Formats: sequence, C-alpha cells, structure tokens
Amino acid sequence: MSLPSSSEPYRFPVAARYAGMESSPLKDIFALAARTDVVSFAGGIPDPELFDLEDIAASYEWVLANQGHRALQYGVSEGEVELREQAARRLSRDLPTDSSQIRVTSGSQEGLFVVAQAMLEPGDVVLVESPTYLAAVQAFAVHGARMIGVETDDDGVVPEALEEAIRTHHPRMVYLIPTFQNPTGRTMPVARRQAVADVLLRTDVPLIEDDPYGALSFTGGTWAPIAALPGMSERTLLLNSMSKLMSPGVRIGWMRAEGPILNTLAVAKAAISMQSSVVDQLTVARYLDSVDLDAHVARVSAVYRERRDAMAAAIAPVLPAGAHVTHPDGGMFLWAALGEGYDAQVMLAEAVSAGVAYLPGWSFFADDPDRSTMRLSFVTHAPAVIEDAIGRLGEVIAQHPRR
Amino acid sequence: MSLPSSSEPYRFPVAARYAGMESSPLKDIFALAARTDVVSFAGGIPDPELFDLEDIAASYEWVLANQGHRALQYGVSEGEVELREQAARRLSRDLPTDSSQIRVTSGSQEGLFVVAQAMLEPGDVVLVESPTYLAAVQAFAVHGARMIGVETDDDGVVPEALEEAIRTHHPRMVYLIPTFQNPTGRTMPVARRQAVADVLLRTDVPLIEDDPYGALSFTGGTWAPIAALPGMSERTLLLNSMSKLMSPGVRIGWMRAEGPILNTLAVAKAAISMQSSVVDQLTVARYLDSVDLDAHVARVSAVYRERRDAMAAAIAPVLPAGAHVTHPDGGMFLWAALGEGYDAQVMLAEAVSAGVAYLPGWSFFADDPDRSTMRLSFVTHAPAVIEDAIGRLGEVIAQHPRR
Repeated sequence: MSLPSSSEPYRFPVAARYAGMESSPLKDIFALAARTDVVSFAGGIPDPELFDLEDIAASYEWVLANQGHRALQYGVSEGEVELREQAARRLSRDLPTDSSQIRVTSGSQEGLFVVAQAMLEPGDVVLVESPTYLAAVQAFAVHGARMIGVETDDDGVVPEALEEAIRTHHPRMVYLIPTFQNPTGRTMPVARRQAVADVLLRTDVPLIEDDPYGALSFTGGTWAPIAALPGMSERTLLLNSMSKLMSPGVRIGWMRAEGPILNTLAVAKAAISMQSSVVDQLTVARYLDSVDLDAHVARVSAVYRERRDAMAAAIAPVLPAGAHVTHPDGGMFLWAALGEGYDAQVMLAEAVSAGVAYLPGWSFFADDPDRSTMRLSFVTHAPAVIEDAIGRLGEVIAQHPRR
Repeated sequence: MSLPSSSEPYRFPVAARYAGMESSPLKDIFALAARTDVVSFAGGIPDPELFDLEDIAASYEWVLANQGHRALQYGVSEGEVELREQAARRLSRDLPTDSSQIRVTSGSQEGLFVVAQAMLEPGDVVLVESPTYLAAVQAFAVHGARMIGVETDDDGVVPEALEEAIRTHHPRMVYLIPTFQNPTGRTMPVARRQAVADVLLRTDVPLIEDDPYGALSFTGGTWAPIAALPGMSERTLLLNSMSKLMSPGVRIGWMRAEGPILNTLAVAKAAISMQSSVVDQLTVARYLDSVDLDAHVARVSAVYRERRDAMAAAIAPVLPAGAHVTHPDGGMFLWAALGEGYDAQVMLAEAVSAGVAYLPGWSFFADDPDRSTMRLSFVTHAPAVIEDAIGRLGEVIAQHPRR
C-alpha cells in the first residue's frame, strides 16, 4: 500500500478554476479591517443598528405560526410563489412583471453564479464596467470567462467604447450595475441608459443588469432599470437583492427574465442548491406584504445620506491636487482616485496603523487597474467617526507625496 | 437595427452543460405525483407532521431575540462558528473533528456542487454506485464529468469491481452513500467499508462520502462513516445534512474535510453564494444546542420503521416471481427490481391512473439502467395508506405480465 508519509498533508486534486486561490489578498484586508482598533470603510456592510429587526422577527414568527409545515418542507427551485408575487409587484412599478418571470436566489451572488452556469462557456468574453463588482467577476471567471473592462466616465459605461468592445470581442453578455454602482457609486442618467440600450439592441448582445442598490436613493428620485427601456426586457436578466434593503444575513434575492431562459435558470438553480431556504423565502414575502419597505428604506437612506455628506466633506480637503472623488446620489460607496504616483494598496498598511481601512481599488478592475484608487463605504459608521477617521487617512495621504 | 420579429422569443445563449435540459422527465413525474388524488412514493419527502415545529420556531425566536443583529448581518463563507462547533461535536462521536474542519453549505445539494466546483475538470471520471443519487450525478455532470457506475450488491459497492474501475478509468474521485443509500436503502456493513477503504488507500483516489440518512436507523445501530477508518479521514470529504433530521426547508448542511482543500472549499462556496443564511445557520446551531436531536430522530425513525414494515409487507406478495426488493434498516427508500421484461417508466402512467406514484429507477443509473426498477419512499404516508396504495400498484403490476 502506498500510504503517504504522515508529515505531508494529503492533497485533493483541485480544479484549475481555483488553482492558487487558496487565499486572497482581499481576505487579508478584511481580516485587518475587522480589528477593533480600526475604523473600516472596506466592506459594504450595512449598519446593523438600522436593521428592522422587530418587523423581521415578527415575520419569522408569523411564518412559523401560520405556514410552519410548509416553511420546513422542500419547496421548488423557481422560488415560493408568495415571494415571486412580491418581487413582481415591486418590479412592476417600472416594468410589467408576472410572478412566473421571477427566479429566487440565495442573494445576488447566487443569482450571478446561476447566470454564469446557465450561459457561460470557457473562453467566452464578458464585458464589464471598468471598474466593476469584483465578486461578479469571480462568479464569471470560475466559469472560464474572460472579463474585459469597458471605459466609463461619471455617467457610467461609455456607449461608443461599449460598441467598439462588442465589435472587437464578440462578448457572450454585458454585465452592468447602472445605479449607485459598486465600487464607484456612479449612476447612469436616462439618456446614457438609452444610448447603451441602443448599442445592445443594435449588436444583439444580452444584458445582465445588477440592481442591488437602486432603492437606496438620497435624492428621492429612482431610476428605472435598463430592462424597462423599449425592446430590452426580453434580452435582460435583471437581478435584485434584499441584502441592502432588508438584511444580508437572510440571503434572499431574485432575478427577472422572460422566455425559455427561465427554465434553464431553474434547472441550474436546482443543480446548485435545489432551492433557497423556504423559511427565509416565506419570511421575506411576509415582510414585504406586511411592512412598508419604502418607508424603511427611506429612513435608512436618510441616515446614509448624512454619512455620505460627512465623508464627502471630510475627504475633499485631504485629497491631493488632481485627485477625483465621486459624489454618489445613493447606495453605499464613494470612490477616490488619488492620481498618478499613488498606490492605494501600498498605503493601506500605514492607514491601518493609523486606525482606518478602505478597499484598494485595483481589485475592481478586470484588466489595467488604476492602483491609485480606493473604495470607501460610508454606510457603517456615524458622521463623527467618519470625519475623524478620514482625517487620519488624510495624514497618511499627506505623508505620501506624489512620486 | 436588427430587432428580432416579435413573434419569436429572444433566445439567450445557453451553456452546453444545460442544453436540452429545459425540462426533465423527473419534473413531469413529480408534477403527476403532486396530484391530490395520487398517493406518491416518488419524492424523498419527510412527513411534515413529524417536524419538530415548536422547537424550531423557538430556536428562530431565540436567535432573533439574542443574536438578532448578527443573524441579519453578513457572515463568513466557512459558516458560523456555533454551527461548526455543533457539527464537529456530532461528527466527533465517530471521528475526532474540530470546528475548523467544517464547511457549512445550503443543504447537501450545495455541498455536492461545491465539491464539484472545487475538484472537477471537464472530462474527469467520477465513479458512483450503480444505482446512485441522481441529483449528485447532475451536480457532477454540469461540470463536464463523466459518471461511471460501479457494480453493487446488497452490501453496497463491490470492492473488486471498484478497484477494476479505478484501474481502468483513473477517476478524479469516488462518490458513495454507504448508509441507507438513495435510492436502494442499502447499507455497507463494516467489513465492506474496510474493503472499500483498502481499495481507495491502495489506489490513492479521494472519496466523497455522502451521509444524509445515517442517523435514521431502525435497529438502534449506527454506522461510522468510511472517513472514520484508519487513513481515510484526510482523503475523504464527508457530507452531512439537516434536511432529513430536522427540516429540508431550512437548507443547512455541512461537510468535513482536512488540509488545504478546506480553503478551496471556502473560496468555491464564496463564489457560489457568498455564505449560507446566517439566520438559518444560527437557528440550527441553537436547535442542536437546546434540543435532544437524537431523541427527536429516534421518534421519527420509529414512525418510519412502521411505515417500512407496512410497505415491505404489502409489496412482497404483489411482486412478480424473480423480483428483488431491498429491506432497508433505516433511511427513506425501498428499491424494487421487477426483473427482465418490466419497464417501470412505461408502467407509471397506469399506476398514476390507479392513484399511486413511484420514481422509475432508470434515472438513478449513470449508465446501463435497469428499467425494471422503481424507488419507493415509505416515509410520507401512514401504514394504512401505504397498504392500500401498494395494493393498487400490485394490480397494475399484475396487468403487466413479463413480456
């Protein structure tokens, strides 16, 4: 028998898609940021004090009291009908949607993974905003897709650049976060959405539209998804999540689709996880049915707006000349590009020593990263904490004059 | 602009792994079986009357009252530590296990999918029991793996056949359900487990050991997993699920592993769904901490045993000469092979007309299906219902003399 020597651990074979991914620099950053002596702007972590804990607990209690046997039993891969009806009702404000067009997922992350499973072949190109949401990139990348970043400006992806990239790279799909984007906080205005839709219709490329933040508006205004523009609904997979509006811990999201792809999405979901927690699904449905989510989101957004104001006011004076910072109208993130000569990854260790953490921006680029960038989440801390910590970040920046 | 004509639905590109899988014959069977005028033995559906609803509801209430902010917040991909400790505690009865060796998944299905993501390359061979659990086959198949069924007898997989298949096909891994197997209900005795372990150690092939039913014993005896045999723990991924012991709707399972693969499993889990519902994880941990699960499972098993007895007694006289039926010592399923000349799939329509449904066995074979087989779950219905429905099934069988 060829038993391995006891000093060497057994090595399971690992698929190439995860080779070398045993640890990640981001994981190390989050570990640093979790230190209690550090004010972290690194994660996209809602302030737990703003959770509607009482109503959510009441919703769990109601489901277990009134639908208990069903909640504990197997459900269906498509998702529980009450939740799909609530999702359709919300979506129908902008885009007529039937509950049969909804597929429930365990958060948006599983939604993105289901989309990748259903659609992507190794070697396929996915066009993404530059920068874009890194966990989406990962869900696509483990399916062997090649991500190519498309130029953006303060209004989001640049239509001419998108069209050129489509003609050059023949992508399988385009992935966009049009409203309060992660990581930049930018929002595509209506005219830009229409121009992007025109490109996608002209070139016949499907759109994966990710909208987890859209309801977190600081202006009162909301944006209809690109999927709601003429001709776009049938060629768009539109993803929503309850993580930012109700609770990330509950892990419930959904996507809207039309036509035969709905069946493929259900089969893929079944292969991945059979179905999402029936208890959680019915609880979210009950919550949406019994609580005024818009009013709750308005309360949360008002707090987030104050924090955005605090961060925007604090950061402007400490940025070097020529730096660029976004001023988001909603969502959770502010994005700063310090400019040539700065490396936000290198600077992070000093920032952490000074008691403040952010996410270096390089990880959000599919290619050609701007290493001077940083993502700062403004939602977790109170204004005074933000002001103090950004002041300390400013001292670190000041010690790093442009090389 | 090349808009498609409005009469044709837009067609998203679909990955080859799901081509032609828009619907499944099994889905049609389950739809039939859901008819209220049919007694269905098709699904592996626990009797909801046996759920410990009161204690589970109390556990949700406790978590939301005592850990509410944490339960609603993001968690970690590895799983919440309280749940991993409970899992380690249960596993340690047979196999010393530390909570750091546990990875939480959203049910066993996601566990199998995580394993496939982490380990399988297109074209890899996975050896499975013939027959085996079809949803595992699907999780592996969508990763491009080729499933090859290995001969089994009443004691499970045949060691000599396993060794020959390993030498012939050079599999990436072997997938086994040693205790109260799905679909056959068979259990591998200790000597067979040791013989299989010897083959795996000699040939250096990793084992994926699936154990969702092991606690549902009708004899009072339980079987230590193959992973607990000398030399096997480091080369086995051992999967457990709370679906059959507590609730399938809660969607919580876990796997045990050792060494560097633990990191890969966490990265794969993060790419797929970031983390499992934190509310559900903490609730299962609380449930395991506050309730005597063994006592609950003993109550459930006593009821299931009566139902197995009812089904075994009812089916013996109605089977044709030469038929073979298993007599499971636990779990949920009984497996009948009617013998040459019978086609259980063809017979199903008549059975449903007669008000009884089962799952045709062909779908559980990776290759070379025995079409005379059927899987009958005995757990959902009371003995009198079982006796009556099996009687009607007998009439259908009698009208199908051996061709």
